[in-house]
Amino acid sequence: MTNELTNYFQEMLPALEQEMRDILLADGTQPNPFWGMMQYHMGWVDSELQPANVNSGKRIRPILCLLACQAAGGDWRQALPAAAAIELLHNFSLIHDDIEDASPTRRGRATVWKIWGIEQAINSGDSMFALAHLAMSRLSDRGVAAAVVVQALRRFDETCVALTQGQYADMDFEARDEVSVAEYMAMIEGKTAVLIALCGELGALIAGADTTVIEHYAQFGHDLGLAFQVIDDILGIWGDEVLTGKSAATDIVTRKKTLPVLYGLAQNDDLRRLYAQAEGGDGFVETAVHLLNQSGARTYATDQAAAISQSALHHMEATQAAGPAAVALRQLANALLKRDF
Amino acid sequence: MTNELTNYFQEMLPALEQEMRDILLADGTQPNPFWGMMQYHMGWVDSELQPANVNSGKRIRPILCLLACQAAGGDWRQALPAAAAIELLHNFSLIHDDIEDASPTRRGRATVWKIWGIEQAINSGDSMFALAHLAMSRLSDRGVAAAVVVQALRRFDETCVALTQGQYADMDFEARDEVSVAEYMAMIEGKTAVLIALCGELGALIAGADTTVIEHYAQFGHDLGLAFQVIDDILGIWGDEVLTGKSAATDIVTRKKTLPVLYGLAQNDDLRRLYAQAEGGDGFVETAVHLLNQSGARTYATDQAAAISQSALHHMEATQAAGPAAVALRQLANALLKRDF
Repeated sequence: MTNELTNYFQEMLPALEQEMRDILLADGTQPNPFWGMMQYHMGWVDSELQPANVNSGKRIRPILCLLACQAAGGDWRQALPAAAAIELLHNFSLIHDDIEDASPTRRGRATVWKIWGIEQAINSGDSMFALAHLAMSRLSDRGVAAAVVVQALRRFDETCVALTQGQYADMDFEARDEVSVAEYMAMIEGKTAVLIALCGELGALIAGADTTVIEHYAQFGHDLGLAFQVIDDILGIWGDEVLTGKSAATDIVTRKKTLPVLYGLAQNDDLRRLYAQAEGGDGFVETAVHLLNQSGARTYATDQAAAISQSALHHMEATQAAGPAAVALRQLANALLKRDF
Repeated sequence: MTNELTNYFQEMLPALEQEMRDILLADGTQPNPFWGMMQYHMGWVDSELQPANVNSGKRIRPILCLLACQAAGGDWRQALPAAAAIELLHNFSLIHDDIEDASPTRRGRATVWKIWGIEQAINSGDSMFALAHLAMSRLSDRGVAAAVVVQALRRFDETCVALTQGQYADMDFEARDEVSVAEYMAMIEGKTAVLIALCGELGALIAGADTTVIEHYAQFGHDLGLAFQVIDDILGIWGDEVLTGKSAATDIVTRKKTLPVLYGLAQNDDLRRLYAQAEGGDGFVETAVHLLNQSGARTYATDQAAAISQSALHHMEATQAAGPAAVALRQLANALLKRDF
């Protein structure tokens, strides 16, 4: 990471973590599993509810929200409740996603449902969803005008609905044979882009920016999220193992319906016949990658990623933000788009 | 039902239903399962997503909210978004409860998870949770001041957290041998009382009542909910089959840890020994009821129900509400407490 970004991270992260700890009562006063399950998921306690400090995500979304607030002329501390709310919302969705995907581990640790059972994990996610909202209402305590808080909460919940629409589509696609590229783009918009759009939007809204400027911050986040996902899809097939930490062509092995695959399936009959076979057999991955390349799927996805990335940076410029926070925000965007993070 | 209450129900119910239909896009424009699952749960469509009109609950909570608003000097139409939000919140919790309790049916129909699977049902509940919040933000559209909306949303989410705490405890108790009467009362407070308290509180808050009056409405709802649950517990053992629609002593057969049972277990060694046996055997129900009567459990629970009911009616009087809405509110309370509804 570069200088401005590093400085802001060092300043913002402890304040953000404290804001979230306050909301989840992670001060040791509530050592029962109701609070403990959520604190475990956040990485603050182990499965015995003893203090721990483990990797629990990079907190990119909330930092983006805080940087947007500062870059738009506000004081990032005023946006802390919104940043905490966004990170808690993201984590609520992970608790439920892990149940829905039957994932036994996340970031090297057992998932909440794996330890406490599906029933309690559903309820724990619900609690964190409610607490994410309570986090938002703390904006009032930091002097944000009531009308702004109401607007922020409305956008927060419209985003929640879009998130669950994305998750609905993601699960629906797994059960379906045919998924169009357009349907896929709408799905990742819900699963990834809308929440990052919200980061930019709420930061600028709390800073008191003009409607047009707020919209540019929202579009910046939106396109950043979308580009990030498309790049992820490309790396899932053609990625460098060292960079991704996964074995190459993972998404081919698992037959994941990502953008390049859906594009390839629409273009190439041989690929469609290959994917129609129940068993891939020897050389499945090599053949599939060859057919994808032949269909122009890599070029298509790369062009898409480039165009959407450019749009993100265009919206960032259109905010007319200057100063160290704007520099840091651009650095964060570039780092995410280049996976140099 | 008596006159005033019947009149208000006839006036309020269609308006409430329309408010909820607007939020869940139940106008036929979104015939896909994402919206359809929620519309099915609400009783507006069948499992094929074709229009239906089935019993989907008595809507007692939202009507209580609307009556409280009117009785406290407001216009009930202004409270419609809050009433809709409370009913949607209640229904979100039912969708998740049905998964957590593995209940295949509700009100004579298959549950959402039974038709669309656990994964989609978890997500559908999450969507309805988010939409309940969006319903709340419509208060602004009806001219409720932003500061009041923020306060209402904060109380809404504090209530959501308490609800999930109650649900946590309920599931936790099933896995435990010993549960105290105090723990049980705290659990039903979360599962039942806090949401009915919120009905009274938000109604009075939106009406612009004084803090003291709002607090009396909240306590009225709280005690009403608590008394309702304790009466339910009594009926679950000594209830008239005709009145309850369940076979007598259902809660003994299923060994449900309700208030009379927990009181009896704490008082009576013979009952504790009986419940410690894995198999009840012949005469289990009769012996259990006999020992419960001997331990004074029925008297204890009946006294509790009477005291809490009296407290509810005391708080209703303390609101100093007059006029037809106040009459209707008292009628509703009495009907609930006498199960004459």
